[in-house]
Amino acid sequence: MSLLEQLIEAFRVLPGVGRKTAQRMAYHVLERGRDGGRDLSRVLAEAVERIGHCSQCRDFSETEVCAVCASGGRDRQVLCVVESPADRLAIETATGYRGLYYVLQGRLSPLDGIGPRELGLEALATRLAAGEVGEMIVATSATVEGETTAHYLAQLARQHGVRPSRLAQGLPLGGELEYVDRGTLSHAFGSRAEMPR
Amino acid sequence: MSLLEQLIEAFRVLPGVGRKTAQRMAYHVLERGRDGGRDLSRVLAEAVERIGHCSQCRDFSETEVCAVCASGGRDRQVLCVVESPADRLAIETATGYRGLYYVLQGRLSPLDGIGPRELGLEALATRLAAGEVGEMIVATSATVEGETTAHYLAQLARQHGVRPSRLAQGLPLGGELEYVDRGTLSHAFGSRAEMPR
Repeated sequence: MSLLEQLIEAFRVLPGVGRKTAQRMAYHVLERGRDGGRDLSRVLAEAVERIGHCSQCRDFSETEVCAVCASGGRDRQVLCVVESPADRLAIETATGYRGLYYVLQGRLSPLDGIGPRELGLEALATRLAAGEVGEMIVATSATVEGETTAHYLAQLARQHGVRPSRLAQGLPLGGELEYVDRGTLSHAFGSRAEMPR
Repeated sequence: MSLLEQLIEAFRVLPGVGRKTAQRMAYHVLERGRDGGRDLSRVLAEAVERIGHCSQCRDFSETEVCAVCASGGRDRQVLCVVESPADRLAIETATGYRGLYYVLQGRLSPLDGIGPRELGLEALATRLAAGEVGEMIVATSATVEGETTAHYLAQLARQHGVRPSRLAQGLPLGGELEYVDRGTLSHAFGSRAEMPR
């Protein structure tokens, strides 16, 4: 296989990149982005070797403890549990949240062999037992597996005297009633709240 | 900047990859594709250093002369001129063409400072003058710049006694008349041909 063919195949490891896109990437790098290609190669090799997981929150980190967990400026009484590093980043970027995080790196899915052990729930339980955390925000996704995980996490929290809370569900901002799915609409209708004066 | 941030930024050198996609790529590689990431890094570094241009057709090649130009099984009397390596690959994949290629790596665009010299047209002229080529297939794109380039190439061919030909223009296969653009429809209508019995 020629080096160009190898490069095209190698790009296909990236998510959402099929044969055509991989080809375009290879040609682009060779035609107009050799310096960028060099950088990407170097940083990628370094990242793959050096980025591990934070020993406290399980998020990606190049250090034993990540910057958020090590920070002195965060509220250590609130713990937000998310499924993935991407979810953590989304919350950190979109909200003004100043507490800590716990990244499950997945969600409960017995059929796929993903149980409490794979999600690091033992370590989470130990942390809740330590008594520092007062509220646990369960920010798993609003899917069946996410809800199952949320339910499990809520029980775990209560066992250790920690108050569990869950992100609000309802119409998305800018959501047209006509186009919102039935489940969401039904839930939002049932959970209607009195309007303030 | 953390290593993860650097990785996300580095992915943005790829075409069509914005901040969000770059993030998804970085997370994907770290979560599920570390081996693939290592491969990509290695092949990318090697490709960026070692892939140059074929001295005969200007296509990408890791050797002085590319496999197609070096092949004994191609018809050396037909030369197909294309704008880019991607165009060359598309023709090679879609058609049964067995002649040789010449890759311009661009198209005439005086405003952008791209003239005959940048497209290697001197070397092309030398090759046409050598007398081996009988037909030159001009496969530049059907855009204004592509047409200008085609016109220039046709003149060059005739100067050296070489027959220039151009890809047919008309309705694309499966094209609905209603949705085809006016220019294409007008051209196809004007170039109508008598149907065989």
